[in-house]
Amino acid sequence: MSTSERLVVNGRAYSMPSASTIVVCVDGCEQEYINQAILAGRAPFLASLSDADLGTVLTGDCVVPSFTNPNNLSIVTGAPPSVHGICGNFFYDEASGAEVLMNDPKYLRAPTILAEMARAGRRVAVVTAKDKLRALLGYGMRGICFSAEKADEVRRDTHGVEQIAERVGMPVPPVYSAQLSEFVFAAGLELLRHERPDLMYLSTTDYVQHKHAPGTPEANDFYAMMDGYFAKYHEAGAILAITADHGMNAKTDAIGRPRVVYLQDRLDEKFGAERTRVLLPITDPYVVHHGALGSYATIYLRDAARANEVSTFIASLDGVEAVLDKQAASKRFELPTDRIGDLVVIGERLTALGSAADKHDLSGLTVPLRSHGGIAEQKVPLILNRRLRDLDANRRLRNFDAFDLALNHAV
Amino acid sequence: MSTSERLVVNGRAYSMPSASTIVVCVDGCEQEYINQAILAGRAPFLASLSDADLGTVLTGDCVVPSFTNPNNLSIVTGAPPSVHGICGNFFYDEASGAEVLMNDPKYLRAPTILAEMARAGRRVAVVTAKDKLRALLGYGMRGICFSAEKADEVRRDTHGVEQIAERVGMPVPPVYSAQLSEFVFAAGLELLRHERPDLMYLSTTDYVQHKHAPGTPEANDFYAMMDGYFAKYHEAGAILAITADHGMNAKTDAIGRPRVVYLQDRLDEKFGAERTRVLLPITDPYVVHHGALGSYATIYLRDAARANEVSTFIASLDGVEAVLDKQAASKRFELPTDRIGDLVVIGERLTALGSAADKHDLSGLTVPLRSHGGIAEQKVPLILNRRLRDLDANRRLRNFDAFDLALNHAV
Repeated sequence: MSTSERLVVNGRAYSMPSASTIVVCVDGCEQEYINQAILAGRAPFLASLSDADLGTVLTGDCVVPSFTNPNNLSIVTGAPPSVHGICGNFFYDEASGAEVLMNDPKYLRAPTILAEMARAGRRVAVVTAKDKLRALLGYGMRGICFSAEKADEVRRDTHGVEQIAERVGMPVPPVYSAQLSEFVFAAGLELLRHERPDLMYLSTTDYVQHKHAPGTPEANDFYAMMDGYFAKYHEAGAILAITADHGMNAKTDAIGRPRVVYLQDRLDEKFGAERTRVLLPITDPYVVHHGALGSYATIYLRDAARANEVSTFIASLDGVEAVLDKQAASKRFELPTDRIGDLVVIGERLTALGSAADKHDLSGLTVPLRSHGGIAEQKVPLILNRRLRDLDANRRLRNFDAFDLALNHAV
Repeated sequence: MSTSERLVVNGRAYSMPSASTIVVCVDGCEQEYINQAILAGRAPFLASLSDADLGTVLTGDCVVPSFTNPNNLSIVTGAPPSVHGICGNFFYDEASGAEVLMNDPKYLRAPTILAEMARAGRRVAVVTAKDKLRALLGYGMRGICFSAEKADEVRRDTHGVEQIAERVGMPVPPVYSAQLSEFVFAAGLELLRHERPDLMYLSTTDYVQHKHAPGTPEANDFYAMMDGYFAKYHEAGAILAITADHGMNAKTDAIGRPRVVYLQDRLDEKFGAERTRVLLPITDPYVVHHGALGSYATIYLRDAARANEVSTFIASLDGVEAVLDKQAASKRFELPTDRIGDLVVIGERLTALGSAADKHDLSGLTVPLRSHGGIAEQKVPLILNRRLRDLDANRRLRNFDAFDLALNHAV
């Protein structure tokens, strides 16, 4: 296949990479992080891309729920969750009566651009921060695919590369650290220089953004680190597209205490126990160190005929931005109807949604809660180190257009 | 009148002040400013109020449009704009065909709590940063009322006090400065110590918040300054209620460029010239140094029968959060129907609304645009240095409950 040929994945056509092409998903990259790092003089390379001759800076919408897995999968499939099926970490399987973890690739309903490019003979590489995303992102893909978290377990037969930790020259970082993301970028640079992948996807973790607001010293340090790597990728001749899985907002009052609507408590009080089931697809509710608090919840009703009544009640609660029934949510947010419950609830910008208060252990929140999941975290950057051609000015840009912009529109 | 008597203003009853009572309106106080100043260790007094024995930290909703004048008037009348009439700086008078400035007290339709307390024999003082608010806030009020901006023009017969600049010991600051607000607090302390007002209202300017994000050094310096004065008011025995006229958000992309929907241009293109009139009540459109860009616009239609058509078009524009017709806007935001045009448009959190691009001079924007006006800037702090009693937990709190909380609920 020559570079003039096009590859169709999930109904969209992609040109073959004309140079090493890197798509970066900066987890939790509220745009203000970049803005403030530039103002502080810590991101000179990103600042340089505002020159229309050198680069392109756009804003796009991520997928709601503005969570990590649905958005990473949307970016690598170029499609919304209604196509790829991953709309959170969990859904409730009514047949088995169990909460089902969607980290398993068997829940993925669409091929990735990465796997199809590899199938078409292109060299493809994926580096993620946490290992839990690796299996989904690398599904069906021949090439290099590993996580920073388990970089010391990388083997050629299973990960497409070996001795990467030694080659990168950084110790494998703790899973909750800024260094975990730095390792992703350092490994990406090592691969770019030596393996020269045609297409590479790098995905970080939002450890820093959950803890530190835009413009604070820790956030600026993190963005300065990234800026340095982006400059190196650029100098190495790569086409670079930077986007995010979701934004990030404080979910607190003025004094840093979390603002939470505990939906299960409110619903039990109003409608009785076990009439409704609140499921928070942000995370496993039994892993409590981060509070499992985001601004998106799904609700399963024992009696579907009461949907209107429950919906009206939830919409009346302070801190709730919107309540949509399954059909409306599926249409507006392009979600698979079989995995979102009967109702979808969105929290306001400064409010998180919980299930029952006693299921959330907030003792691990050592700094004021910052989180995501709602519409308030939908705006994300779309930044390229190239000018773009033939882009419809009226098109609604999505983070899952990143491969399209890099492969089809970058000059 | 004894302290057990109650004063009714605009249908709400207020107890007489039991101690010197100070309500502070911190202009543009997005809650995150306080949160970040506390995290940086720069606001120890405000941090101490999270102890339920010492103080109360709540979140309330300001008035939309989240602008300075409507909210200051709501706070001092204890009522929404549908009662007091001030819903922006401007409205369009169809009879005269002119844009009418609402800074004149003749547009005020309700008495203030301040004026009524003075009438009931209490000592009342008002200090504002900018002089333009002074006439509205002090309307019909016997007592002390002056601005930091014109502190050197203060006379006993017109302002209720004299030689205040000399007494404060600070030079009168430039109108665009952080010091203008500091002067308000310093003057408030001087009055508290010597005039001992029963009731005092202090209102700052959002010069700092328009320029600097929460947690940045300049913002933290400003909040540290305020924290010091709040501590002094507390030590002097005052009951202190702190709120804001509105929040503040970046209105930019990741690289700091303003995101603006120029409504007049879009409407002229779609419906023809002079079919619609976009009015931005944030400010005088001919004063261009701040760009006149906020997230709220009113639209006057030549042909009111086309309201639905125009509304649908505007709602389809990227960056628009909501479009309401006059009746819906008046109901939802409690606005006077005769001063809001035919349609009210709300911009999204990261988007400002403009009229025609050539009417906005953005050359004065020396730092990335931060502004307000929309629903995204509605959450504001309500902080008291007292516990509260008899407060209904289900009540929707407003910034214009500040006097009610301080006079009727503080313990």
